[in-house]
Amino acid sequence: MQVVVDDADDPRLGDYVRLRESSLRKSLESERGLFIAEGEKVIRRAAEAGHAPRSFLLAPRWLAGLDDVLRRWPDVPVYVVDEAVAEQVTGFHVHRGALASFHRADLPPVGDLLGASRLVVLEDVVDHANVGAVLRSAAGLGWDGALLSPRCADPLYRRAVKVSMGAVFALPWTRLPSWREAPGLLADSGLTTVALTLADDAVDLADLAAELDGSERLAVLLGTEGAGLSERWSSGATVRARIPMRAGVDSLNVAAAAAIACYALAPRP
Amino acid sequence: MQVVVDDADDPRLGDYVRLRESSLRKSLESERGLFIAEGEKVIRRAAEAGHAPRSFLLAPRWLAGLDDVLRRWPDVPVYVVDEAVAEQVTGFHVHRGALASFHRADLPPVGDLLGASRLVVLEDVVDHANVGAVLRSAAGLGWDGALLSPRCADPLYRRAVKVSMGAVFALPWTRLPSWREAPGLLADSGLTTVALTLADDAVDLADLAAELDGSERLAVLLGTEGAGLSERWSSGATVRARIPMRAGVDSLNVAAAAAIACYALAPRP
Repeated sequence: MQVVVDDADDPRLGDYVRLRESSLRKSLESERGLFIAEGEKVIRRAAEAGHAPRSFLLAPRWLAGLDDVLRRWPDVPVYVVDEAVAEQVTGFHVHRGALASFHRADLPPVGDLLGASRLVVLEDVVDHANVGAVLRSAAGLGWDGALLSPRCADPLYRRAVKVSMGAVFALPWTRLPSWREAPGLLADSGLTTVALTLADDAVDLADLAAELDGSERLAVLLGTEGAGLSERWSSGATVRARIPMRAGVDSLNVAAAAAIACYALAPRP
Repeated sequence: MQVVVDDADDPRLGDYVRLRESSLRKSLESERGLFIAEGEKVIRRAAEAGHAPRSFLLAPRWLAGLDDVLRRWPDVPVYVVDEAVAEQVTGFHVHRGALASFHRADLPPVGDLLGASRLVVLEDVVDHANVGAVLRSAAGLGWDGALLSPRCADPLYRRAVKVSMGAVFALPWTRLPSWREAPGLLADSGLTTVALTLADDAVDLADLAAELDGSERLAVLLGTEGAGLSERWSSGATVRARIPMRAGVDSLNVAAAAAIACYALAPRP
């Protein structure tokens, strides 16, 4: 259902306002139960993953490319705006000219993921781009899912979705109900938990990978930007592993560390 | 030399204007021969790497923490501004309240890096965050330097500097003089060049790593976002290697691929 809108203050565009203001968006998106997908490829992936659209906001030139997606929901409004109106509404130049607002589905219960063979577990990773990047790497490298501590950034925030290239729709993930109980919950599920750390007494990640016989079910724990894993999560893990670093250099970015761990400990076919 | 400035239009703040407008900044920074460092840690690292400051722009609360750095250049102006003025000048809220403008030094000649044992070589990586992330991982994992094709994004652009956590100052890097001649130049220098690709006939990266005897000097070639390596660079490499991916998933982000390659092919002590 196409509707041409030429007034940036039209209340029907309310899902799309001020997309760069993260605190405003956080409350708006949770109140309304929505998330925003940006760009044709990401919109398509959200739709293919079974998410239900609330509306689309498209520059005219994007109508044809998304035609098959739009036809699937003939009753969902497609707001057609020129790029100047889109910029006024969203607060930035929408390079890819295509936005969609989707209903947030309920997250799966954590028990649905605890039987997996390979899980990434994030503790208080607060940067949306990092969360998106970790999920993209985990999906690409054949991992089964991700668990997020309660304070982690929202994987369905626009920037996380975008950086993940839509992997947040393909890779199963959910929130851990409790930060405190997480190490115990994972161990009780029969997972071997690997805490990634810079501690001197940790084993070399490559040595750990060589020792695995392929039958283990693994969860890799990665800590917050800056401080890394908490003592509780680190000491609560089955094993602590270290990526060898050049002396005197900062730790790796958490997304780089996650990519390396997901590669080194990937399920072997 | 501290100077309190309360007018955002003061021409002495001209190095810091509209930091988020990348096309404006690109021409301004190359005309004036400067780059911007943001945050106490990154400013400190630029100074320690021997870069000469043009000026500092600090909120009052940052003066004490950077005192030792400021004392090294008693004649360099320190513009002290409140955060509202900083925001007016730069166009965004400067979370870390500290900026500095440094003179750009000449890049080293490419020949200075060609004798290295481990080089990352980027072809047309156009996203500043990706360039910064790759350099951070390369530095952390013990690689010797990086070479950038002429069209790669600028490692000294503010966002690249920030994402690299200052690794752009610690890791030697320079521009390749020619995109076309790069594969030949690397081969003529006795480097074994490894093209990272998704091609089916490429060898598994882990198999390649296992075959190395530790004496090889390696250059890993990574391609542009989206399209990956050009045919010229890919077919011009000594060997083509592949990171195994889950069927149907997009390639990895170039920064994730670089982290994995730098880990898998790292110099062994």
